[in-house]
Amino acid sequence: MSAPPAPSGRTRVRRRPQRAAYDREALHAVLDAGFVAHVGHVVDGFPVVTPTLYWREDDRVYWHGSSASRMLKLAEGQQVCLTVTHLDGLVLARSAFHHSANYRSAMLFGVAEAVTGDAARLEKLRAMMEGMFPGRWDALRPVTGQELKATRLLSLRIGEFSVKVRTGPPVDDDADMDWPVWAGVLPFVQGLGATIPDDAAAAAGHAAPDPATIARRLRAPQARKQARK
Amino acid sequence: MSAPPAPSGRTRVRRRPQRAAYDREALHAVLDAGFVAHVGHVVDGFPVVTPTLYWREDDRVYWHGSSASRMLKLAEGQQVCLTVTHLDGLVLARSAFHHSANYRSAMLFGVAEAVTGDAARLEKLRAMMEGMFPGRWDALRPVTGQELKATRLLSLRIGEFSVKVRTGPPVDDDADMDWPVWAGVLPFVQGLGATIPDDAAAAAGHAAPDPATIARRLRAPQARKQARK
Repeated sequence: MSAPPAPSGRTRVRRRPQRAAYDREALHAVLDAGFVAHVGHVVDGFPVVTPTLYWREDDRVYWHGSSASRMLKLAEGQQVCLTVTHLDGLVLARSAFHHSANYRSAMLFGVAEAVTGDAARLEKLRAMMEGMFPGRWDALRPVTGQELKATRLLSLRIGEFSVKVRTGPPVDDDADMDWPVWAGVLPFVQGLGATIPDDAAAAAGHAAPDPATIARRLRAPQARKQARK
Repeated sequence: MSAPPAPSGRTRVRRRPQRAAYDREALHAVLDAGFVAHVGHVVDGFPVVTPTLYWREDDRVYWHGSSASRMLKLAEGQQVCLTVTHLDGLVLARSAFHHSANYRSAMLFGVAEAVTGDAARLEKLRAMMEGMFPGRWDALRPVTGQELKATRLLSLRIGEFSVKVRTGPPVDDDADMDWPVWAGVLPFVQGLGATIPDDAAAAAGHAAPDPATIARRLRAPQARKQARK
């Protein structure tokens, strides 16, 4: 693992710097626990924030969509900010002021680059699928050239980034500790419901894919444990 | 309810327009089911996307933080894009190409305005708290003038916006319907864990707040029902 870059003016966390981390391990933990990123672009001088599924491979984050998507087209070759946030709980203090949230978030900055070449793009799409449902790719109807052409794949090399994490109980003023009100954490938990086959899959009796990989990603055990301290 | 504004070039959904809605009811449903928004700003020409808690009151969305927060300071009086996204499930099709996600998302555009005046700001902060934990505000140690001064409160009037929703099973190519692979939806479910009192609250035996309002917000019953169709 290379040394983390020194935070720039853009990524240095000024507020509550004790919540900030600049190392790759912390970043990967946040990225690898999520599915949706919010990608910010500047379009005609205005900010636009688009949600998208994403995944990480080594030192890059990927996202994709239709070749006809205006946002993807506009993002290509441009500066983006890609943010991933997990809300782990609401933090209830004895004063309104010290209420807070437990969360894990990561912000990445850089230029969105198109992945080009059919082989490279197929490989990335395969990695996305296999990262969620191991073994599924080979069971699917193969990707056609037309479909590949209709798919735009962008990536961002992980360079400039920041990570912010808050865990644990409220931090109240000392003078408030006897105030007669409950204080603590209301945890948010994300999980999976039972798979819902479509009509044809139900009729054919195909086995549903194992959601274990997805479930592991959602569980984020470390953060949950810390929140309980 | 006023007529929805005609979508502008910025908010007209071009891709999959059948997933788009421009009416306020759909917008409110998405906004009122969430806690974290991703706010996009343009800072020195670059996009920055910051996660924040938010809430809606009538035709405005609010968010807040420290007066010292650089992002809030920079956002005041500037164009922002505020996006809220709920990931409701992964949609597994018979081809990689038709895999998708079920989601609800809203994008709002406009100028972030500061809420000024101590009385107005107290009222908004109270509304935020009461919207999550009815009755809690009056039980808390009262807000001090110093704390109010240290809090910046921004709002965005709901004007230009778009809503996108996908629900339901995969949409495969007709020719693929007999492909021997499972297809359907893997639903994501967000819920609440048991409240975790801090040490002092546990020792004092204070009653934990009722999480019913929060739980209702997370449940998003309509989308869940549709996903099961």
